[in-house]
Amino acid sequence: MTWTLARRAHKMNPSVIREILKVTEKPGIISFAGGLPSPQTFPIDAFAKACDQVLRGGGADSARASLQYAASEGYRPLCEWVAASLPWDVSPDQVLITTGSQQGLDLVAKVLIDEGSRVLVETPTYLGALQAFTPMEPQIVGVSSDAEGVDVDDLERQAAPTDGAIEGARFFYVLPNFQNPTGRSMSEARRAALVERAAAIGLPLVEDNPYGDLWFDHPPPPPLTARNPEGCIYLGSFSKVLAPGLRLGFMVAPKAIMPKLLQAKQAADLHSPSFNQRVVAEVLKDGFLDRHVPGIRALYKAQCGAMLTALQTEMAGLDVQWNSPDGGMFLWVRLPEGMNAAELLPRAVAHNVAFVPGAAFFAADPDPRALRLSFVTASEEQIRTGIAALAQAIREQGQG
Amino acid sequence: MTWTLARRAHKMNPSVIREILKVTEKPGIISFAGGLPSPQTFPIDAFAKACDQVLRGGGADSARASLQYAASEGYRPLCEWVAASLPWDVSPDQVLITTGSQQGLDLVAKVLIDEGSRVLVETPTYLGALQAFTPMEPQIVGVSSDAEGVDVDDLERQAAPTDGAIEGARFFYVLPNFQNPTGRSMSEARRAALVERAAAIGLPLVEDNPYGDLWFDHPPPPPLTARNPEGCIYLGSFSKVLAPGLRLGFMVAPKAIMPKLLQAKQAADLHSPSFNQRVVAEVLKDGFLDRHVPGIRALYKAQCGAMLTALQTEMAGLDVQWNSPDGGMFLWVRLPEGMNAAELLPRAVAHNVAFVPGAAFFAADPDPRALRLSFVTASEEQIRTGIAALAQAIREQGQG
Repeated sequence: MTWTLARRAHKMNPSVIREILKVTEKPGIISFAGGLPSPQTFPIDAFAKACDQVLRGGGADSARASLQYAASEGYRPLCEWVAASLPWDVSPDQVLITTGSQQGLDLVAKVLIDEGSRVLVETPTYLGALQAFTPMEPQIVGVSSDAEGVDVDDLERQAAPTDGAIEGARFFYVLPNFQNPTGRSMSEARRAALVERAAAIGLPLVEDNPYGDLWFDHPPPPPLTARNPEGCIYLGSFSKVLAPGLRLGFMVAPKAIMPKLLQAKQAADLHSPSFNQRVVAEVLKDGFLDRHVPGIRALYKAQCGAMLTALQTEMAGLDVQWNSPDGGMFLWVRLPEGMNAAELLPRAVAHNVAFVPGAAFFAADPDPRALRLSFVTASEEQIRTGIAALAQAIREQGQG
Repeated sequence: MTWTLARRAHKMNPSVIREILKVTEKPGIISFAGGLPSPQTFPIDAFAKACDQVLRGGGADSARASLQYAASEGYRPLCEWVAASLPWDVSPDQVLITTGSQQGLDLVAKVLIDEGSRVLVETPTYLGALQAFTPMEPQIVGVSSDAEGVDVDDLERQAAPTDGAIEGARFFYVLPNFQNPTGRSMSEARRAALVERAAAIGLPLVEDNPYGDLWFDHPPPPPLTARNPEGCIYLGSFSKVLAPGLRLGFMVAPKAIMPKLLQAKQAADLHSPSFNQRVVAEVLKDGFLDRHVPGIRALYKAQCGAMLTALQTEMAGLDVQWNSPDGGMFLWVRLPEGMNAAELLPRAVAHNVAFVPGAAFFAADPDPRALRLSFVTASEEQIRTGIAALAQAIREQGQG
């Protein structure tokens, strides 16, 4: 039998992270590779009570509704919760519940990307976004970025039509808070400048904010979307503040494009699981996150601190650089001149420590010296042991 | 702000059924329109026990795993259950758990359809498949079909390259058991002929089987895929035998194309909810479906019987035709010569009864006289009342 694949299928690739996770699934390894929230933060008891409430506490009709087909938009009380939780004026009609925020990226790609469309991303950017956009065959262009975020002048240059094309970029995908992979956040000044410039040149923004609640000392500045709701699609997630295994996220979009996102959603999976939506709505009642999320913040801050301290100690005398995030799950490391993170990985794994080489996160021109470390899955003791092992691997690698 | 939509977005449409469901959401209406399984069949108690077992019965590590990110392939014990449940030799590695079988259609579209690709469907066919395929911009072609299923000679004609094209059809999408919308099933002879002809001309089949377990008196003949596994993708669902609200389905694909389907799945939503997969695996243990599904079959058989009896009684003297399904959820009605189902609908709604006009289910050349009736959501008494009301509407419509 001859299966003729679509052209786009040839452009799809296995996730580099997934492949690395396979390699690093050996007993005893300390992994800084995955982007897995700390499972000790999952509110198991709250979920158990909510499941019970949804299936047994509200009578048979309510239980049956949680197991029946439902509206593609999402469970209305959950849409209302999302709208009320956001720091700008959002109608529940502008909220679409998605099967994880990854699905939001898939829907954005389907509705906004034609073959050859220019799509702008940060340098570096979230790998899952590159994977979601690629099947629609865009030309993905990285915009120069520094520690404060994107370079708005370069953004304007890259957004303009090139080479006689009549059309500029379709949108700029940006993750302003504790970015994956770098952990960096955009400053207030840069956010203001970005939104102003994007509005001036008519460039839509797709703002992804899975980590915004995971700040250590101070909440980040308001979202980009709060500053220009008609010019932005906003993606959020329950994966980092509750648990990823329920696969629930949401998108907020201007009324003008919501019908098309909704039609794409319906074609993709009809609706996100009604049961999960009702369970999460039940958990969220009565300000649950206000009590729950501070514990996640404190844990991640402590683990980030442990990793920074360990880096300070263990990397002494090595030409290794790293940043100091204000929240989130990741920090970003640059290896000494001439060293290649992908080549370092097997030696690190031999020393029982794993990370993700940074190259996968670049739309083009990867930085071979960069790597991503997650500080949220391993314990403080594992972090100390793992960073010492990483330093040892770097030393050996430097000696060739 | 100017949002430039992808060309495919202009081809997307709101679901006709969804729009009809809105119109027919009035108090007291008897709806034969939706394809909603009877909620009284949902095994609420089994789900409640399984949620409890997953979150509280297996210790904290097991509970945490159910809430964590997981492999895109699906929860291994569930993949193993699916493989073992099918009547041909399937490895768990060929099983991909999907977010409802609707997502299987989306993944098939992404991996197999290029702009302009010929895709063959039955006449009529499942509306959700048309919606899932359309965004990838195929040329969808309906193959002639009769009460026994597809016309294999017409299939061969339509599969061939046309108008100087170098390429024939990419695949034929087919729903052999108790089809949505018609309720018809393919005979054994037609299945054998279809698989043989498809293999001879190298045409892949995409077999959708959400209703196969819902037979009334005898199980249907074996699936098409069992006869030529290398030439078929098989889609299945837990929506009709357990409940749709968990959004779990599966696909079985030849090893050659599984990696691309898996990459598309990962880009679409990373994985289907780990929690739901573990809950369903827990429910399915110890032969649950063997005890549960016979009750669904008996209920739907009784309701189908009630509808057929009511049609016999109420349509007396009217030139209305209908079929007599051997299982599933739907039957197919043809109105008298010259009558239009879409035009009849408002009058039917005025009489407090709703259906879906058949036109939406055709890739081209809709039959304006056809309509779909679901017999599973309404009670037998409602069925009698609703069919009497429908007959009244038809009489009035006939009098102009």
